[in-house]
Amino acid sequence: MSQHIVVIGGVALGPKAACRFKRLEPGSKVTMIDQSALISYGGCGIPYYVSGEVSEARELSTTSFHMVRDVEFFKEVKGVDVRTLTRATRIDRENKQVHIQDVTSGVTSVLDYDKLVIATGATPRRLNLPGEDLAGVSSVCNPDDATRIREGISKGEVGKAVIIGAGFIGLEMAEAFADMWGVETSVVEITGQLMPRLVSPALAAMARKHMEENGVEFYFGESVKAIEGEDGRVTRVVTDKRTLEADAVIIAAGVVPISDLARDAGLAVHDRGGVFVDEFMRTSDPDIYAGGDCAIVKHLITGQPVFLPLGSMANRQGRVIGTNLAGGDARFDGVVGSFVVKLFETSLAGTGLSLEAALAAGFDAVSVLLVQLDRAHFYPTKELMTLEMIVEKTTRRVLGVQGFGSSGDAMVGRINAVAAILRHQPTVDDISNLEMAYAPPFASAMDVLNSLANLADNVLLGINRGVGPDGFAELWDQRDNGSCYFLDCREEADAGEYLARNPGQWHNIPQGKLRERLAEVPRDRPVVLVCNTGARSYEAQIILDEQGFGNVVNVQGGMAAIRKYGIDL
Amino acid sequence: MSQHIVVIGGVALGPKAACRFKRLEPGSKVTMIDQSALISYGGCGIPYYVSGEVSEARELSTTSFHMVRDVEFFKEVKGVDVRTLTRATRIDRENKQVHIQDVTSGVTSVLDYDKLVIATGATPRRLNLPGEDLAGVSSVCNPDDATRIREGISKGEVGKAVIIGAGFIGLEMAEAFADMWGVETSVVEITGQLMPRLVSPALAAMARKHMEENGVEFYFGESVKAIEGEDGRVTRVVTDKRTLEADAVIIAAGVVPISDLARDAGLAVHDRGGVFVDEFMRTSDPDIYAGGDCAIVKHLITGQPVFLPLGSMANRQGRVIGTNLAGGDARFDGVVGSFVVKLFETSLAGTGLSLEAALAAGFDAVSVLLVQLDRAHFYPTKELMTLEMIVEKTTRRVLGVQGFGSSGDAMVGRINAVAAILRHQPTVDDISNLEMAYAPPFASAMDVLNSLANLADNVLLGINRGVGPDGFAELWDQRDNGSCYFLDCREEADAGEYLARNPGQWHNIPQGKLRERLAEVPRDRPVVLVCNTGARSYEAQIILDEQGFGNVVNVQGGMAAIRKYGIDL
Repeated sequence: MSQHIVVIGGVALGPKAACRFKRLEPGSKVTMIDQSALISYGGCGIPYYVSGEVSEARELSTTSFHMVRDVEFFKEVKGVDVRTLTRATRIDRENKQVHIQDVTSGVTSVLDYDKLVIATGATPRRLNLPGEDLAGVSSVCNPDDATRIREGISKGEVGKAVIIGAGFIGLEMAEAFADMWGVETSVVEITGQLMPRLVSPALAAMARKHMEENGVEFYFGESVKAIEGEDGRVTRVVTDKRTLEADAVIIAAGVVPISDLARDAGLAVHDRGGVFVDEFMRTSDPDIYAGGDCAIVKHLITGQPVFLPLGSMANRQGRVIGTNLAGGDARFDGVVGSFVVKLFETSLAGTGLSLEAALAAGFDAVSVLLVQLDRAHFYPTKELMTLEMIVEKTTRRVLGVQGFGSSGDAMVGRINAVAAILRHQPTVDDISNLEMAYAPPFASAMDVLNSLANLADNVLLGINRGVGPDGFAELWDQRDNGSCYFLDCREEADAGEYLARNPGQWHNIPQGKLRERLAEVPRDRPVVLVCNTGARSYEAQIILDEQGFGNVVNVQGGMAAIRKYGIDL
Repeated sequence: MSQHIVVIGGVALGPKAACRFKRLEPGSKVTMIDQSALISYGGCGIPYYVSGEVSEARELSTTSFHMVRDVEFFKEVKGVDVRTLTRATRIDRENKQVHIQDVTSGVTSVLDYDKLVIATGATPRRLNLPGEDLAGVSSVCNPDDATRIREGISKGEVGKAVIIGAGFIGLEMAEAFADMWGVETSVVEITGQLMPRLVSPALAAMARKHMEENGVEFYFGESVKAIEGEDGRVTRVVTDKRTLEADAVIIAAGVVPISDLARDAGLAVHDRGGVFVDEFMRTSDPDIYAGGDCAIVKHLITGQPVFLPLGSMANRQGRVIGTNLAGGDARFDGVVGSFVVKLFETSLAGTGLSLEAALAAGFDAVSVLLVQLDRAHFYPTKELMTLEMIVEKTTRRVLGVQGFGSSGDAMVGRINAVAAILRHQPTVDDISNLEMAYAPPFASAMDVLNSLANLADNVLLGINRGVGPDGFAELWDQRDNGSCYFLDCREEADAGEYLARNPGQWHNIPQGKLRERLAEVPRDRPVVLVCNTGARSYEAQIILDEQGFGNVVNVQGGMAAIRKYGIDL
C-alpha cells in the first residue's frame, strides 16, 4: 500500500518529515514543493554568516559532510522528489489535491496526495513603516538577504546600523554587526527591556550592560516612526524620541506564521495565525499534518497555545510527522519554551516561564535570583553565573529558570537539566536534589542550580527575605532620606572603598563580628544587608532575625549582582 | 526546646549539616569534632592542586570569598563549635553520648547529644602490598598528602610516576602529573579498561587513546605485586607482567567507607562497610543521621544499595540532614549515578547504568553509540561528541547515557539533562523530544542527545542494525578470509585513501549512487556499511534492505568512531 505524500515547504520541518518518512516507507513517494529556488538551509545560522563566523553562505545549505542539500541531493541521497519555484495556491481537501503554480511560468497544475504536510514556515513581521522598502533595509529571512547584508558590510558601506527589535534575531544581528565588523550598532526596542517577557528586568539589564560594554547602544521604550533615505538608500531611522543615522537597518520585530493556505482550506487556525495541531502533529483534517514555524503548539506549563518558531522544534516535529505518515503514533505533546541566545562571550537563556509570564498565566508566583560560581571556587576557569527561578508559592512548583553569564555551554547545561524535568512539575526540592555530574572543573559540589533551589526554599520558608539588584536600586535611590540602613557584611578590606565613597550612608560590620557588634545596628529602620553574592548577608539576616530586628532584607546576588546590573556605588 | 547536635567528621557533609541546622535553629548548639587538625577542605580539588592549576593548598580550605574555613571561622561566622584533633571512640546510644578522645593528650571525655550525625567519610583502599609505606608512595586523601606530592614534583624529584587504578582519582592524577609537569606517567589497572563498569569498552578505548596522545601510558589487566625501593624511597612498581620505574606512586584503587563506629554501636551497616540510611538520611537509630562517603544510598535505577562517594552527594545530603535535625522532612531518596572526569581538554561522563551494569542488574538491555557534532555543523567551534545510550529492549526505557569528547561543559550539560529526567523512567521517545535550548553556537537543531534517542528508536525498530567501533574491529580483523564486504558509502574523495591502502578489501559506492550501482554489491556475504559518522551508512542500509539484501550492518559512529577508537585502516 504505497502512498503519495506531498510536503508544502522545503526548509527545516518539510525535509525532515519527508526524509524520515522515506526511511520508514522507502517504497512510497514523496513530493516536496517550495516557492523559492533555495531549500533546506539553516536559517538560524544567518547571523553567524553575517558576522563572518560562518565564512560561506553555502555552508548553511550543506550537510555536515559538505554535500549541498539541493534538488539532486534529495533525489539521489534521500529518494525525495523536490519541485522548487513551485507555489501551492489551494488545498482541495475533498479531492485530496494541492493546486500548484510554477512561479516562473505561471503554469498551474494539481498534485494528488494521500497525506499532506503543511510546512509553510513564518515570515518576518513587517512594520508598515514609510521607507521599509529602501535599499539597505532588510529582515533576516533567507540566505539571499544575508548575502546582501554581508556584502554591504564587507564593502565598507555600513558605518552605522540600526536594529529594530531586541529579541533573539535582533540581539544576534547586533552582535554580528558590532563584534566582527566594528559597525556602530544601535538597537531600538518598543518595550522597556531586551527579550521582553522571556527574562526578568534584572537579567535583561545585566545582558544590556554586557552588550553595551561590547559596543551596542540600546534605545528602549521607543517606537520607530519612519525609515528615511536618500536616492533610494536608507540614511536614518526616526523614532518617537530621536533620529538615528543608519547605513543599514535590520527589522527584527518577530515573525508571523504563514497559515493562509491552511485557513483557506478550512483547517483550524489561530486568530493571530498559525495552524492548530494535536499531539500527533495532525491538523483538524487527519490526513493533513503541520509543524514548524507555521504551527501552534501547547505550552506545557500554562496549558495555553503558543507560537514558538525555532529550528529545533521544526526538526523534532518533522521527525514525529515522518513517523506518523508511515502509520506510527509518535507524539509531540507540547513545549516548555527553552531558549538561548549568545551575547558575545556569554549567553542569556531560559526555560519555562519568567515571573511576568507566570503572573500573566495566573500563577501566584515569586522569583529568586542567585549569583554563584559555575564551578569549584578554587578552579581557575570559574565564572559567575546569574540564575533566576520562578516558583509557585502555594505548591512550591518550579515554573521556570532563566540565566545570564558564564559560558554558553555551562549555562545551557543547567537550563537543559531544568527543561528536561519541567514537564514533570518538579518542586523546589526536586531541583535542590537534582543530580548534576560533579567534578571541580565543571561544577561546585553544591551546583549553582541546586543552590538556586535552596535559595527558593529559604525564601518560601521566609528565612531568606531578599531583594534583587533592581529592588536594591530602588532602595538606594532613596538613601538621602535615610529611610534604610545599608550594611555591608563583608570583611573591612572589601567594604572599605564603598564606605569611603558613601560616608554616612554605607556601613560595614563583617558578618563574623555581627553578634558582638549588634549595638551598632539601628532598630528604627529597615536594614539592607549586602555581601559579595548573598551568602553572608543571608547568614547576617538570620542573626538579626534571632535578635529581634524587625525589618531586615538581604540583597540577592549581592555586590556581584549590583555590579552586573550596573548600579554605581 | 534547644537541642545539642553532635557531628562526627568535619569535611564536606559534617559542616554542611551543621551550618544548615544552625541557620534553621540559631538558638541550638552544634559541636563538630574531627580527628585531624584540618577541616572543611575540598578534597576533590587535590588533583588540581597537584597539577598546579590551583596554586595554593589553602585555596582548598577557603570560602569563595577567601576566608579560611577553620575553627574560628565556624565559631564566628557559622556559630558552630568545632573541636579538632578529637576522635570519637564510641557511640553510647542508650545514654545518647559520644565518647571522645583528645588525639594529642589522650584524654577522654563524653559529649551528650540530642541528635548525632555520623560523617566519618571514607579512606583510600590499601592494597596490602610490600612497599606500600615507602616514601614517595601516596594515596590522595587530604591536602597534606597533596602538598607532599606536589613538593616532590616541583623539586624535580619525580621523573616517572606510576598510578595504580584507572578510576576517577587515578585518571585525574595521571593528568595532573603528565599535563602540567611533563612527568612520564603510567597507569596500571587490574581490569581490562579505564573506568570499569562505568563506561563501555568502546568509550573507554576512546578515552584511553586520548590520554595516550597526551603522554599517559596504560597497562590494563595487570595487577601490582610489589612496590620496591631503595633507602626507604620508592623506585619500582612490579606487576604480574612487568617492572615499571617510579619516583612517585599514587594508589588510587578506590575508597572504603569508615563505618566501624556505626557498626560497633549496632547500627545497620552494609557487609562491605557503609552505614545504611533511609530517605531522610536517618540510620537505623532515628536520632542518628549519616551521610556522605560513609553512607550507603539507594540506586534509583537498580533499586539496589550503592556506595557513591562524591563531594556533591555529601553537600546535598548534608543539607537534607541539617533540615531534618531542625524538625524538617527533607528527603534524599537515592541516586542515578551521574559522574564526569576531565581528561585533558575533554571529558568522560555519564549517568544511570552502563550496558555492563544494566545487564548485571538483570535488565534485558541494548546499547547504541552515536558520534555527532555538539553544535551546528556550520558553527566554527563545533566538535564531535560520542554518546552511548543504554535501553531496556521490552519497555524502551532509557537506563543510562555515557559520553566522551567535546568540551566538558557541553558534555556535562547533556548528561545532566538525562540525569534530571532519569528517575522518571523516561523512554527513548522522551529523550527524542527532550527540549534542549537551541541556538547554533550551542547545539544542532536536532541536538546530539535527541539524535542519540532517535538512533536507539531506529535500532529498537530493527531498521538500523549497527555495530560499534569495537564490533567493527572484530569484523575487520577477519577481513583476510573475505567473510564480509566492507562498503564505504562516502563520496569518492573521502573514501579514496582507504581504497588505496586496502585493495580488494575496502569498497566504495557513494550512498547517493547506491540505487544505480546495486549490482556491484555481493549478496552472498554480510555487507558492512561505513560512512563518516553513521548517517549515510544507515540510509544505505535502508536501500539494501529494500532490495532484499539479507545481511547488512552499518557502523555506528562511522569513521569518526573508528578513528577515535584507534583502529588503523
